[in-house]
Amino acid sequence: MKIAIIGATGYTGFELIKIALRHPHIKLKYLTSDSSADKKISDIYPHLKGLCDMTLIPNDFNSIVSDIDAVFLCLPHGASMDAAKFFADHNKIVIDLSADFRISNREIYESTYKETHKYPDLLKEFVYGIPELFGDDIRKTKLIANPGCYPTSIILPLYPLIKNELIDTDFIIADSKSGVSGAGKNPTEKTHFCEVNEDFKPYGIFNHRHNPEIDFILSGSYKNLHVTFTPHLLPINRGILSTIYTKSKSNLNLIIKCLRDTYSDKPFVRIYEKDIPSIKNVAYTNFIDIGIYKDKDNVIIVSTLDNLIKGASGQAVQNLNMLSGFKETDGLL
Amino acid sequence: MKIAIIGATGYTGFELIKIALRHPHIKLKYLTSDSSADKKISDIYPHLKGLCDMTLIPNDFNSIVSDIDAVFLCLPHGASMDAAKFFADHNKIVIDLSADFRISNREIYESTYKETHKYPDLLKEFVYGIPELFGDDIRKTKLIANPGCYPTSIILPLYPLIKNELIDTDFIIADSKSGVSGAGKNPTEKTHFCEVNEDFKPYGIFNHRHNPEIDFILSGSYKNLHVTFTPHLLPINRGILSTIYTKSKSNLNLIIKCLRDTYSDKPFVRIYEKDIPSIKNVAYTNFIDIGIYKDKDNVIIVSTLDNLIKGASGQAVQNLNMLSGFKETDGLL
Amino acid sequence: MKIAIIGATGYTGFELIKIALRHPHIKLKYLTSDSSADKKISDIYPHLKGLCDMTLIPNDFNSIVSDIDAVFLCLPHGASMDAAKFFADHNKIVIDLSADFRISNREIYESTYKETHKYPDLLKEFVYGIPELFGDDIRKTKLIANPGCYPTSIILPLYPLIKNELIDTDFIIADSKSGVSGAGKNPTEKTHFCEVNEDFKPYGIFNHRHNPEIDFILSGSYKNLHVTFTPHLLPINRGILSTIYTKSKSNLNLIIKCLRDTYSDKPFVRIYEKDIPSIKNVAYTNFIDIGIYKDKDNVIIVSTLDNLIKGASGQAVQNLNMLSGFKETDGLL
Amino acid sequence: MKIAIIGATGYTGFELIKIALRHPHIKLKYLTSDSSADKKISDIYPHLKGLCDMTLIPNDFNSIVSDIDAVFLCLPHGASMDAAKFFADHNKIVIDLSADFRISNREIYESTYKETHKYPDLLKEFVYGIPELFGDDIRKTKLIANPGCYPTSIILPLYPLIKNELIDTDFIIADSKSGVSGAGKNPTEKTHFCEVNEDFKPYGIFNHRHNPEIDFILSGSYKNLHVTFTPHLLPINRGILSTIYTKSKSNLNLIIKCLRDTYSDKPFVRIYEKDIPSIKNVAYTNFIDIGIYKDKDNVIIVSTLDNLIKGASGQAVQNLNMLSGFKETDGLL
Repeated sequence: MKIAIIGATGYTGFELIKIALRHPHIKLKYLTSDSSADKKISDIYPHLKGLCDMTLIPNDFNSIVSDIDAVFLCLPHGASMDAAKFFADHNKIVIDLSADFRISNREIYESTYKETHKYPDLLKEFVYGIPELFGDDIRKTKLIANPGCYPTSIILPLYPLIKNELIDTDFIIADSKSGVSGAGKNPTEKTHFCEVNEDFKPYGIFNHRHNPEIDFILSGSYKNLHVTFTPHLLPINRGILSTIYTKSKSNLNLIIKCLRDTYSDKPFVRIYEKDIPSIKNVAYTNFIDIGIYKDKDNVIIVSTLDNLIKGASGQAVQNLNMLSGFKETDGLL
Repeated sequence: MKIAIIGATGYTGFELIKIALRHPHIKLKYLTSDSSADKKISDIYPHLKGLCDMTLIPNDFNSIVSDIDAVFLCLPHGASMDAAKFFADHNKIVIDLSADFRISNREIYESTYKETHKYPDLLKEFVYGIPELFGDDIRKTKLIANPGCYPTSIILPLYPLIKNELIDTDFIIADSKSGVSGAGKNPTEKTHFCEVNEDFKPYGIFNHRHNPEIDFILSGSYKNLHVTFTPHLLPINRGILSTIYTKSKSNLNLIIKCLRDTYSDKPFVRIYEKDIPSIKNVAYTNFIDIGIYKDKDNVIIVSTLDNLIKGASGQAVQNLNMLSGFKETDGLL
Repeated sequence: MKIAIIGATGYTGFELIKIALRHPHIKLKYLTSDSSADKKISDIYPHLKGLCDMTLIPNDFNSIVSDIDAVFLCLPHGASMDAAKFFADHNKIVIDLSADFRISNREIYESTYKETHKYPDLLKEFVYGIPELFGDDIRKTKLIANPGCYPTSIILPLYPLIKNELIDTDFIIADSKSGVSGAGKNPTEKTHFCEVNEDFKPYGIFNHRHNPEIDFILSGSYKNLHVTFTPHLLPINRGILSTIYTKSKSNLNLIIKCLRDTYSDKPFVRIYEKDIPSIKNVAYTNFIDIGIYKDKDNVIIVSTLDNLIKGASGQAVQNLNMLSGFKETDGLL
Repeated sequence: MKIAIIGATGYTGFELIKIALRHPHIKLKYLTSDSSADKKISDIYPHLKGLCDMTLIPNDFNSIVSDIDAVFLCLPHGASMDAAKFFADHNKIVIDLSADFRISNREIYESTYKETHKYPDLLKEFVYGIPELFGDDIRKTKLIANPGCYPTSIILPLYPLIKNELIDTDFIIADSKSGVSGAGKNPTEKTHFCEVNEDFKPYGIFNHRHNPEIDFILSGSYKNLHVTFTPHLLPINRGILSTIYTKSKSNLNLIIKCLRDTYSDKPFVRIYEKDIPSIKNVAYTNFIDIGIYKDKDNVIIVSTLDNLIKGASGQAVQNLNMLSGFKETDGLL
């Protein structure tokens, strides 16, 4: 399968390249970047020297579309929708890592991203790509909205519990902590080493853009569920840990059984009861580790993942594997 | 005022020494340590070379008691109670940094620390030393139980809100994150650099020893309040940040007014409404920063402090200042 | 003594403010910044909330000159020389933390900084401010060129050894490592958390701007000494460690005696023979620790300091103390 | 190829397991550990949950020897020699990651490790396993002494330059910096998070055990070359950077040509002339990056590698690949 990575110079592009190099069925054909066109990707990421010395080309989609089977879009939200439209119209596989097609309700998208959605019809066609939950839809589509990193860490453990009415949906708090790579590659005051190192703090209290995505997917079509979600910035490169507080409407065994049953045949989900997940054990992998603990009716769920792999590029390839009929783990172990 | 630091080689001892060197009324007379007796403290902490080169002496209390006015006890719980008894019997000022006298209810102490309390009568005489809350009692005593680091970060913001019935006491979650110095100076697998660095995880879910302390102090004498408390280990040296979730029984203005009124004349409490506290701004200081935010009836409180200063040695000196009639900020700015 | 900090929003300004707040004879009158004028310094550094809430004013020197005794210039090189000229002409004490007056040889300055020096006559009047070495000149001047951070770590141990002809001046290698705060507060790709964290690398091999400063000061007036100097970027906030390799022309005892004699009465220099200096022991202090080791004729010197304190703001205040007749340690312990 | 990892619970064992899982020709048969026998390796490294849940067995070599083709010895020096002897006597492939067979001169080994070598005859049979330098010998042996991490970073760039007499062998300084995993998995005061984090320091000045190994291998059989080697401890998990200072006896082009020629067909060596190697670009890979820079006759060489991969387990597998006739990169990309 011949692929292009559109907007390849960011951290998600870099991770996609490394996964693609190990993937038995993927052939990297194009890496694009307007700002870094004509540079070698290995000049930007010397890690790749000798492994991938491809030259970046500008975002001229017409010149590449006939020569590829699939694209990964690593563009900012807003910019991504045009690229998605172009490649969808050419009947290519589109894995969009931006937020542009994650919330199929146009009003919620627009109020969250302060952006008019140009292709509301297309919005309905994209499938929200958590392979463990929406595999049936993923296998039937060529258009994937790749989930946000925080939402993956929260939706994956909660979705089956909510669907099976095992927890109190009026009471869900997700206290999430993310490494700095989640903020992207562009240097800002907030990602300056001396500001982050030896520090820790929450941000976006009550107003982070991933909150509507979490609520929308967890609500499904019938219920206005709201998660109280607080992200924090961890002084590490990689990983998210979400500590989720809720109340059980059932006993713990049923809750654990539900998670175990849902994910028993899923190669990238690991359930903990006694031990506690930690970021170290999932960093640089496509795993999501989920721990579940109870004291009377208080339930605490701890989930960990690598924000750039299971929270972005790894899950993107997992989606591609699934819709293409490859082995789900190809390139990801 | 002539003081001794009993068990001076740990991190809290080290911080006490540095504060004492800057304090206008404190004279360091003795530093004790059984395991490091006859060593210089500056061989253990070369930072102190030229500043404090005192030689450590063994824990022979009889030989020093006549020559001091006050002791800081930096011993493990269990070991601390005998020292406290000895110096209390000699009518000295005792600031106990261990947990031995924090919970004046013997049964709760014993079930929490799996330890028989040898001096239950003395237990009643110690004052729980949060100067901003219990100043009247502190000024009248010579016996201080210096609070735990996590409890300080949680009790200080919540106490006035609970007392004034502004929040729902059935619903309090404290998701706390601490730097590694909170685990002490002894090397263990859990504090090995490679295990902690680039990692993050919760521990003691539903069973941390500070939980009964938090509940006991916040409950006062009349109510069985329970806080759901989860500590996490941050890959930094210093600092605690607690993200506290509760429901308001009032409007936000009243809640903020309550905190501002309670702490308006307190030199080490700073209240935030728009900006968000961060560990960096309180590290190496005796400040506790408290931010408060609301969305409908959901209230989030963020508090930060340095676990070794406001969470231990700084608060210990603040207590000494208060009960001795010194200026509250002496040695602490 | 009434002082102004010109360009107060950078890291050296922040450190100067904290030192000034503890200094018995300094009164902060003005903090200036063109880009942040009208903001409170405590909005930029919330650490200062309640300690120093002064409002920044623009760089209008005429409006402040009559009301101050001394200025600290925390401006970029090039920009600093005009401010220095202005305050020197008004007969004020000027402590310039930039590089503009460090190299009194105009040609070397200009070839190093690719900048025409506007005030070559003034250049001769500034004293290079390492108090331990040039105290006699410092006490007689009002104009101080505050040394660079790397040069302080290298010149201070080597100067007496070279002057006393104890080491081979044809063979001096300084392998230096600095924390990220040395690169300043402005976010760049090189100081992005994810680029620095878990990384380590040299930079400016054979061409760092501090090399001519080191060579010029160590050469004195008569000899063209050259140090091979390689700076590296450490993934920490604060501190410099220089590992210096040279050959002895004498025995180690003489070398150690020379350093001990030179610095015996200097409160901020600590000499090590057996133990090894480490950054931790000097971070957040004005100390420079110097260790010296020998194997046959190979000599290794290890020096550590805090780049923002002894390497910048602390040394600046130490210079002010010295030329003002204050106690050398005022504000610095 | 059926392999056993003897002493599998340390960091080098963990890395070997991860490489083995990806290797097309290796089948992990046994993981041994006396202290952790009967535990699952995935309980010690939860990272491996679902990937490798093998149970550790005790070091009973008789019970496993008939069922394996090769062993990796991850034992402490001293302990390793008995195991090596046993498996060598059974004609198995032995890759010894300890120091026991690196220095084929018994006297130097014994004076360095303060340990009598029990099998001096076997000492001569082991090949020092830097595949890029000693491939001819490696292909002919079944007994590999896997090099130390620091020595690999220093020998690999210097060996061809010394052999071709391009640099001054009387003047070689290697200032090396290593991440903490080089100190192993056992918690000690020196690897306590709070002691290492935000710190940096040299250790083993003039007396590190890797110095004789470096000198011995670089000297070859005819010359008593001595490198001045100083290791430092970096506050990061992984990686070594060596900054090597020497004098050229030739021009830079010849030096670069020599390195390029020597390593042109070596898949894991990358040469830099303008850009500068950094640890980040080789961490978690089997690459060694080498940069070379010159100013007059001063030459600086910068080499970087991952201490656990190219500096230990990766190189071990590379040696196995080479002597087994596998592709050199198998399992390592």
